[in-house]
Amino acid sequence: MEYDGSRFLGWQTQPGGGTVQDAVEAALSSIADSPVSVTCAGRTDSGVHAIEQVVHFDTEANRPASAWVRGANASLPESVAVLWSQPVAADFHARYSAVARTYRYRLLNRAVRPGLGARHAGWFHAPLKVEEMRAAAALLVGEHDFSAFRSAECQAKSPVRTIQILQVEEKAEGRIDFVVRANAFLHHMVRNIVGTLIYVGKGRFSPLQVGDILRSKDRGRAAPTFGPEGLYLEKVRYEAKWGLPQ
Amino acid sequence: MEYDGSRFLGWQTQPGGGTVQDAVEAALSSIADSPVSVTCAGRTDSGVHAIEQVVHFDTEANRPASAWVRGANASLPESVAVLWSQPVAADFHARYSAVARTYRYRLLNRAVRPGLGARHAGWFHAPLKVEEMRAAAALLVGEHDFSAFRSAECQAKSPVRTIQILQVEEKAEGRIDFVVRANAFLHHMVRNIVGTLIYVGKGRFSPLQVGDILRSKDRGRAAPTFGPEGLYLEKVRYEAKWGLPQ
Repeated sequence: MEYDGSRFLGWQTQPGGGTVQDAVEAALSSIADSPVSVTCAGRTDSGVHAIEQVVHFDTEANRPASAWVRGANASLPESVAVLWSQPVAADFHARYSAVARTYRYRLLNRAVRPGLGARHAGWFHAPLKVEEMRAAAALLVGEHDFSAFRSAECQAKSPVRTIQILQVEEKAEGRIDFVVRANAFLHHMVRNIVGTLIYVGKGRFSPLQVGDILRSKDRGRAAPTFGPEGLYLEKVRYEAKWGLPQ
Repeated sequence: MEYDGSRFLGWQTQPGGGTVQDAVEAALSSIADSPVSVTCAGRTDSGVHAIEQVVHFDTEANRPASAWVRGANASLPESVAVLWSQPVAADFHARYSAVARTYRYRLLNRAVRPGLGARHAGWFHAPLKVEEMRAAAALLVGEHDFSAFRSAECQAKSPVRTIQILQVEEKAEGRIDFVVRANAFLHHMVRNIVGTLIYVGKGRFSPLQVGDILRSKDRGRAAPTFGPEGLYLEKVRYEAKWGLPQ
């Protein structure tokens, strides 16, 4: 699925509604003509977008793929769309079967705040040193205890995650993208890393300090959580055996 | 200025407010501490965005450029921002001094409707033949009577305009951009051209038919006006003598 997180109160269902999950379950339940509960690969926070979110659900309803895609899209709000659908093995699980997730953080780096896309990119006003940010990013790649980049509300049992890729990409017109792929993420991990790399880019932290912060396992030493506006769940990877479009 | 047209009722002021001009005049009048009326280079319709709109105004107020930029941005809504400001000669006119305007139309070309960016790109579901659209586009370049691509409400005295550039750009992930630069445009001219090129891309018109339509000067023969969602005023050119950032 693809969605615009600025129009929802996050992924996870709430009693008052207004979340992506609420919208998706209502649309699919209407197609199935019976209650459908969905499980997603990555529960995005309020304001965070998805270019590719993957969900699974169990149903007795036998419908063609076009019903689960075009039928659902006809009743979903304009800010969320199903991209594809297919039957999967009973032991597939959107979250637990995922072997890697990729997030992209889009940052506008210019003196003037955005007038277009303010809810679809982060913004930092002062010039950032990209090479310094790249040097710091390299220190975070690999298997580490990411307690220093984990929110207090994080419910994961272990703080150990493996970052496979962490790239800082210079784009046209003052845009910088941060792309990070890991087996899984802790709560706020990407936004805490982006905030810390921005501290490096503006000269408040040296790249080597980021290594110290990581080893300290102390959330208080890393930078504040950067805003959700620029964050996109971009890709979820599964083993080939599940036969999903990749 | 840069703005998100999906959040406004077009550029031009209305008695009930809600337009870009209303928002800009309110912010600048507050900086000037006296009423400010602005004139823009291109009056965009409801839903049409600007990456670079140029406006001029007369004022007795003597303020530093930072007041007209950061001061204005502090009071403007998040969906519009001033990018730069500078004093100009008394005979400069944002509209009449402009020698060329560039518009970009962003189109999502894939089977499934967008869930992200639905108000910031047009959408067409069936595959489009890009080479055919390019062949048709070439027939529109140059000085022509564009009556066939002009809305009934257009108030321009002459239907003759000169298209300097009309490009069809294939982008990543099913996106196609149409970029058109002309000395000036008639009302709905870009959206009527885009709609007609999409008719070519899907095989309803041949490229040569577009030449016939142009010569017919008959609005009834061209395709319907395409939606405003994907349209961006991207660039306004002035002669170097005005000393504006270009």
